[in-house]
Amino acid sequence: MLTTQDALARLTAYWTDQGCLVVQPMNTEVGAGTLNPATFLRVLGPEPWRVVYVEPSVRPDDSRYGENPNRLQTHTQLQVILKPDPGNPQELYLGSLTALGIDVAAHDVRFVEDNWAAPAMGAWGLGWEVWLDGLEITQFTYFQQAGGLNLDPPSVEITYGIERIIMALQGVTHFKDIEYAKGVSYGEVFGQSEYEMSRYYLDDADVPANRQLLEIYAAEAQRLIDAGLPVPAHTYVLKCSQAFNVLDSRGAVSTADRAAEFARMRRLAGDVAKLWQARREELGHPLGVVAPPAPAAGFESAPQGTAPRMLVFEVGTEEMPPGEARAARAQLLRELTERLGGTRLAHGDVRVHATPRRLIAVVGDVAAREVDHVRTVKGPKAGAPQQAVAGFARSQGVAVESLRTADFNGVPHLVVERHEAGRAAPAVLGEVLAKVAGGLRSAKNMRWNDPGLSFTRPIRWLVALWGDEIVPVAVSALLAGRETRVLRTAAQPRVSVASAETFMETLAINGVVADADDRRELIVTGAQDLVWDTGRIDVAGESALIDQITYLVEQPTPLLGTFDERYLELPAAVLTTVMRKHQRYLAVRDADGALLPMFVTVANGQVDVELVRAGNEAVLRARYEDAAFFYRADRETPPAEMRERLRRLTFTDRLGSMADRADRIAALATTLADEPSPTLRRAAALVKFDLGAQLVTEMTSLAGVMARDYALNAGETPAVAQAVYEAELPRHAGDDLPAGVPGALLSLADRLDLVAGLSATVGLPTGSGDPFAVRRAVLGLLAVHRAHPELSGISLTGALAAAAALQPVEVTPEMLADAGDFLAGRLEQVLVEEGHPVDRVRAVLPHAGRPSFADLLLAQLGRLIADPGFLALAEAIQRARRIVPDGTAAAYDPALLKEPAEVILHEAVQAVRAELDPGTDLAGFTAAAGRITGPVHGFFSDVFVMADEPALRAARLGLLACVRDLGSDLLDWPRLRL
Amino acid sequence: MLTTQDALARLTAYWTDQGCLVVQPMNTEVGAGTLNPATFLRVLGPEPWRVVYVEPSVRPDDSRYGENPNRLQTHTQLQVILKPDPGNPQELYLGSLTALGIDVAAHDVRFVEDNWAAPAMGAWGLGWEVWLDGLEITQFTYFQQAGGLNLDPPSVEITYGIERIIMALQGVTHFKDIEYAKGVSYGEVFGQSEYEMSRYYLDDADVPANRQLLEIYAAEAQRLIDAGLPVPAHTYVLKCSQAFNVLDSRGAVSTADRAAEFARMRRLAGDVAKLWQARREELGHPLGVVAPPAPAAGFESAPQGTAPRMLVFEVGTEEMPPGEARAARAQLLRELTERLGGTRLAHGDVRVHATPRRLIAVVGDVAAREVDHVRTVKGPKAGAPQQAVAGFARSQGVAVESLRTADFNGVPHLVVERHEAGRAAPAVLGEVLAKVAGGLRSAKNMRWNDPGLSFTRPIRWLVALWGDEIVPVAVSALLAGRETRVLRTAAQPRVSVASAETFMETLAINGVVADADDRRELIVTGAQDLVWDTGRIDVAGESALIDQITYLVEQPTPLLGTFDERYLELPAAVLTTVMRKHQRYLAVRDADGALLPMFVTVANGQVDVELVRAGNEAVLRARYEDAAFFYRADRETPPAEMRERLRRLTFTDRLGSMADRADRIAALATTLADEPSPTLRRAAALVKFDLGAQLVTEMTSLAGVMARDYALNAGETPAVAQAVYEAELPRHAGDDLPAGVPGALLSLADRLDLVAGLSATVGLPTGSGDPFAVRRAVLGLLAVHRAHPELSGISLTGALAAAAALQPVEVTPEMLADAGDFLAGRLEQVLVEEGHPVDRVRAVLPHAGRPSFADLLLAQLGRLIADPGFLALAEAIQRARRIVPDGTAAAYDPALLKEPAEVILHEAVQAVRAELDPGTDLAGFTAAAGRITGPVHGFFSDVFVMADEPALRAARLGLLACVRDLGSDLLDWPRLRL
Repeated sequence: MLTTQDALARLTAYWTDQGCLVVQPMNTEVGAGTLNPATFLRVLGPEPWRVVYVEPSVRPDDSRYGENPNRLQTHTQLQVILKPDPGNPQELYLGSLTALGIDVAAHDVRFVEDNWAAPAMGAWGLGWEVWLDGLEITQFTYFQQAGGLNLDPPSVEITYGIERIIMALQGVTHFKDIEYAKGVSYGEVFGQSEYEMSRYYLDDADVPANRQLLEIYAAEAQRLIDAGLPVPAHTYVLKCSQAFNVLDSRGAVSTADRAAEFARMRRLAGDVAKLWQARREELGHPLGVVAPPAPAAGFESAPQGTAPRMLVFEVGTEEMPPGEARAARAQLLRELTERLGGTRLAHGDVRVHATPRRLIAVVGDVAAREVDHVRTVKGPKAGAPQQAVAGFARSQGVAVESLRTADFNGVPHLVVERHEAGRAAPAVLGEVLAKVAGGLRSAKNMRWNDPGLSFTRPIRWLVALWGDEIVPVAVSALLAGRETRVLRTAAQPRVSVASAETFMETLAINGVVADADDRRELIVTGAQDLVWDTGRIDVAGESALIDQITYLVEQPTPLLGTFDERYLELPAAVLTTVMRKHQRYLAVRDADGALLPMFVTVANGQVDVELVRAGNEAVLRARYEDAAFFYRADRETPPAEMRERLRRLTFTDRLGSMADRADRIAALATTLADEPSPTLRRAAALVKFDLGAQLVTEMTSLAGVMARDYALNAGETPAVAQAVYEAELPRHAGDDLPAGVPGALLSLADRLDLVAGLSATVGLPTGSGDPFAVRRAVLGLLAVHRAHPELSGISLTGALAAAAALQPVEVTPEMLADAGDFLAGRLEQVLVEEGHPVDRVRAVLPHAGRPSFADLLLAQLGRLIADPGFLALAEAIQRARRIVPDGTAAAYDPALLKEPAEVILHEAVQAVRAELDPGTDLAGFTAAAGRITGPVHGFFSDVFVMADEPALRAARLGLLACVRDLGSDLLDWPRLRL
Repeated sequence: MLTTQDALARLTAYWTDQGCLVVQPMNTEVGAGTLNPATFLRVLGPEPWRVVYVEPSVRPDDSRYGENPNRLQTHTQLQVILKPDPGNPQELYLGSLTALGIDVAAHDVRFVEDNWAAPAMGAWGLGWEVWLDGLEITQFTYFQQAGGLNLDPPSVEITYGIERIIMALQGVTHFKDIEYAKGVSYGEVFGQSEYEMSRYYLDDADVPANRQLLEIYAAEAQRLIDAGLPVPAHTYVLKCSQAFNVLDSRGAVSTADRAAEFARMRRLAGDVAKLWQARREELGHPLGVVAPPAPAAGFESAPQGTAPRMLVFEVGTEEMPPGEARAARAQLLRELTERLGGTRLAHGDVRVHATPRRLIAVVGDVAAREVDHVRTVKGPKAGAPQQAVAGFARSQGVAVESLRTADFNGVPHLVVERHEAGRAAPAVLGEVLAKVAGGLRSAKNMRWNDPGLSFTRPIRWLVALWGDEIVPVAVSALLAGRETRVLRTAAQPRVSVASAETFMETLAINGVVADADDRRELIVTGAQDLVWDTGRIDVAGESALIDQITYLVEQPTPLLGTFDERYLELPAAVLTTVMRKHQRYLAVRDADGALLPMFVTVANGQVDVELVRAGNEAVLRARYEDAAFFYRADRETPPAEMRERLRRLTFTDRLGSMADRADRIAALATTLADEPSPTLRRAAALVKFDLGAQLVTEMTSLAGVMARDYALNAGETPAVAQAVYEAELPRHAGDDLPAGVPGALLSLADRLDLVAGLSATVGLPTGSGDPFAVRRAVLGLLAVHRAHPELSGISLTGALAAAAALQPVEVTPEMLADAGDFLAGRLEQVLVEEGHPVDRVRAVLPHAGRPSFADLLLAQLGRLIADPGFLALAEAIQRARRIVPDGTAAAYDPALLKEPAEVILHEAVQAVRAELDPGTDLAGFTAAAGRITGPVHGFFSDVFVMADEPALRAARLGLLACVRDLGSDLLDWPRLRL
């Protein structure tokens, strides 16, 4: 049996054979091998670096007293850095698995998108989690930045999770049962340490002491930066990080603390990085400087035939994220079509395909040559002076005699006609395809060893064939050829393609299903076939997941796994969250839609089905076992006790604990209700209690869902349980909204509290930065309010003031006003996105505080806009507005009005005013105020407003001001464009 | 070429094959692999443990900015723990060297005594430095205690110094030139870190911050101990240690700080150890419990012959320290002679031999059997009652008729005579030898895997032969046989011995020179032969070193090495200190006694001479290069600048810097002189300046010597240079004393300052504890004073008061008095040890403050004690003392004295008083006061002192009190026994 220490020795030996140095783990606690200077510092600058080392990685947050089978406060990483990218790091990595004795062809080894970032270290990279039969065993990253500096060249970082790998290989279900060395288990050796360090991190670490340590470390780091010593400074940044993590695991870090600490660490890490880079330069780069690969040289290609042939262009990549693969396929189609259109090469349809590892364009009937072409060069007008004509001829290198005449907009000009022969297809295509490939971009791009390319993941090869000829495509260091690559685990992973016409067949023969629709079909039918006799896959419900899977595999191999029925006792949301989000498994349901104890996973390639099934089942078992462990523990905990745990969770340093926040939500929700129901009162007392649940700590997306479950379990009424669940809604755009009033009130109160508190302490979000998700909270407020017309009497701006009054910090009127503006801004955006005309949206925006009322007005506006009476009324009001100077009061002395038209208007105004119901809507207003239209027009045709006599003029303007103000509490009339 | 990472991989693989676990280095900075919990905690308790790991060991004090070729602030240890001792750890260790590709037979691999202790961790053990051709490459220790707890079973700790080994194997002279991995040097990889961390430790670490860290760490350690969590507590103890080391390297630790911190760390480490042991017991010892080897069973042996044969008894050990081997040899002779004497076995001479690895006893002509013997059992008196007689016979199991009669002190008793046959030699010897072997003890004993033995180093085998028969000796787990062991590197390291008579020959054939005199002869003649044509070894001068070498090797192989002549520019003391103390090399001198650039080292066994010579030369070169580096740097530094560096060296926290101390010494020395000479003034200004020299920091024993050298170099007069040298004398018991007065005054001032300051802050030494060597300072004071009668006018107690007045702390009169008493106590001890009668010593002790005057008095006493006049005078004075009550004043009214005898005495007293010179010595006193003798006797025979009349009685007692007080300022008369 491969023991832990065997595995470490084998991997070390393997990577040493690949030219890696071996260094030792960092001698201060680090959370990951990435922080070791052998990574964090060495990836900076131009020096080459290959290293392998073990890093016991300390994650205080993962402390579980050794009780959780899969979670350790210190787990073992084996870290490899390859700088520069050797060009084939994935293949080297697979070699390392082989060195461990893993048959990579029999197992399902997958590279699953993972965008890695360590904000506190100013570091990020793109890459993958590597899955072995569904188990994440390695993190594989192309490092792009560290300490905020761009990495040139980028480094490949490979981080093995040793305990996970060993557990899988040894088939044990608890880390303590790992055979660490021959005859000795992990638990026997490290069990006590795991327990005691957990005790320290969770219970016993002294918070003030660790705070002090954090400050001292940070100060020392700063001093050393000032002294120009990046190495010791880096050590102290690491110590900061550990002290911070200890505080965090002790629940002593507020959201604001976290942001501030991250900012400080990021700044320190950035300074360290800059300093290191500068020092290495001063030292003349002791390890040398990486030379980038030379640019590929194109070549001349003389086409052999004259008949049109098929063109195939393949861009071979490392595993693209599903969304990026789809987007790149569209980009390929667009770009290629457009650029081919820019040539004079006749061609047929352009079709494109994408898999995780390739983009393919197939173009039928591409002519052997461009069509020939006469190009006309325009000269001076016919009859221009002789000198000008001679000059033109000279400049074109022709005799004056050979000039011809042609019309330009009916004006004859002298011209030269040049006959240009069409170029051969390979030459034309070579240029086009080079631009297409070099122009590929994704939402988030990365760099690798290529000096000139940038894409979602590395592009590793190009195939470009026109018929059986290679198209000379040279892009940066890549040169197209006829060798494609199939599954890495194939006996022959590189395959030569005879011609464009046989390309797709060659892929198919080698198992690669190039077309996404074909793959989707294979997945869906394969999955349904597997479960046919017992259940079914909810294809519609799982559509997004299936789309994703389609772009995770090139040769879909669905296989059925089962899990122990007893896990069905877990809430369905728990089961599906794990299957969908964590594992990309398709859930299997019975005819009634209830979950069955099985799942379908889709492997890539012709794996050993039994082996892969067993592996995936073990992974799911471990995850469910974890969840069941927490679920049991949680169900044994009364909600009140969980609620009490919120006292230990800091919300933000200035806004108190999460319990304080829940108290405020409860108070506010009951205030918002006219008469709080017993359901609301009880739900308010419990609101957010499940944040104290272990399962929710693990899977935060289950907040609310678990609250409902635990509340019911504890004997609360279904209405109360539903309300505490609904208090969390909506959790994201498009999520369900609270259906009941108690839930809606709690949801509003939750978000009002967040907005009020944070606008006073952190400020409202600006630009893209919104660490506390205030924007989402505001959108939630709007959505909930709009969904509950019965609550339209609640003004969100008023409620915000009430929420502000409950905060432990002062919320000034200015802050409240800003928050109101922010809310209005979001409502405007939402309504416009829903398709309402901007002018109408702006007209109803004064009611942003009561968005459901704004909805009503918008709906009425939509109808009234076709109503001539309303239009006339609106026109009348606008007309009055146009003439009345700003600041004119809506008051006048009726006695001064003598002209009949003005008297009539006066009487109409008075009548409308008397009739108007102050709470009316737009329909009511139109009905009541419609009568003013005629008198207004009469007034304007008969009366000269600007009378010479000032008193009279004032009276007439005052009268019109009254007209102006009609309905001003309903609409912002000037915004309305009619 | 074997790179560093190859070496680590090979050693790890080797020890893994020996069943060791592999663990990772500690993830907090540690000074040595010993501190890693895989050693410190795991050696505790009864659980087995075998581990190998790399430990980058951080020694802030060793920071040299990467400039020193052999000194790194972080060096790489590879640490192995074998628990229990496997019985052959040295052989396993040699196997590991072979695994590294080292030919251990060709090289000179030696185990050189090293008693390891880490007082701050309450840990100690006995073992060796392992030398490879003179280079220390490994520390090999049998751990006896950790955290103050006895280790049962003890563990074997093997610590490889990787950089040293690699430098030797690669033949590079600077650590930066090590090939760390193929094509990459150590300097290229770690050079920058070495420089920057040196900067941190030497220059840039913030002292207040590190002090704060130390306090926080210690508090956290204590809290975790209180919480019963030894693992995190241990981590914090390690952090304490690192913070302390940082402070130390920044020169911020005073002697008192050090003692206090060590005490705290020792206490914390002890608590951690106890806690760990208790927790492991609670956990039921997860790794099991070590079973000690079973005791050996003896066997019956029937002797084959009847002729006397030779007895050989060999106790085979691992390398004993030279002193212990000599002592054990003596013990063996004594014990064996005594115990054989307790048997009735006839035998010839007992001869004993010792080498580092064996003790041998050879006894000639040991009879085959004990002589037979009649034992007489004494019964009742003849004629006792019949019943008593019958009872006696019954108790002896004989018939009444067989009782005989024998006289006891002339009284006839009934007796039984028992004929006892002598036992066979093997049985008798088996018992005797078992007791002898089991009783072996050294000054400092250790335990190993044997359950019942304890000795200076492990006993591994026994050979016991009587003629050709094995003597059945069973001691604890050891059973004697006929297999001896010769050099470990021999082709056949275990050899069977045919008979006692061939034993010594067998050893000799196999190269072992069993007799120490033979070895010494081989060493001396061998060495002299090697150097004959150019120089000679100063055999008398190097006698102690030669004695030591004699017990370092079993097969002495002297070999000559040379070093570069340029090193001869270094002071001879530097050269010889390195050769003698560090390397055990014999220096080679020319006819005038000047050093030649060569040395003789004595290898063990038939090594490859060229290889070993080259290795030793490289070691010496490195050491001299080091010294030369410092020497050059020092000589470029003016003494005043070095003196200034003393400001940064703390003496003790309350007594200021070393510069403050030097200032006080200077002030005091000039005060002590009646009229300070220019030499004294200048020397005082420089005193102790070389403590700021790098070479002295490295080799503290050179303090003073280097001061002289550097002073001369800087242009000081020879007298001044000599005085700053002599200020440091005596450095140890038996050392030279200052010859000149300036040196003597500085020496006195130095020691007075030390005693005054420390007695006020730390207290005077009690028992064996004397961390600041106050006792040695006092002895120095006495020695210097006594060596300089010209300074006898100086009172040390008075000078102590003067020194006290210069201290930055208050020294109370009580403290001064205690210090005076302490001084007197030491003087008493010294004088008694010199052979002076205790009563005389005590009689002169009032002059302890002026020991040279005490010397004078003692000398005079020695002569006067045979002088009847003095004796009579003394008797007269004593007689007066006996009759005068305590407290009687020496005053009287002469008018009351009427009797002639009392008048005569009165006149004699007055005459003596008038004549006595107050500064006189004992000779002068005797001459002057002798005349009192007659009158005193006259007085006593004629006058009745206790007259009835009180006034008269008082006058007579007053007169006698005057007699009593004669010479009381010279001697404490009552102490004198005449």
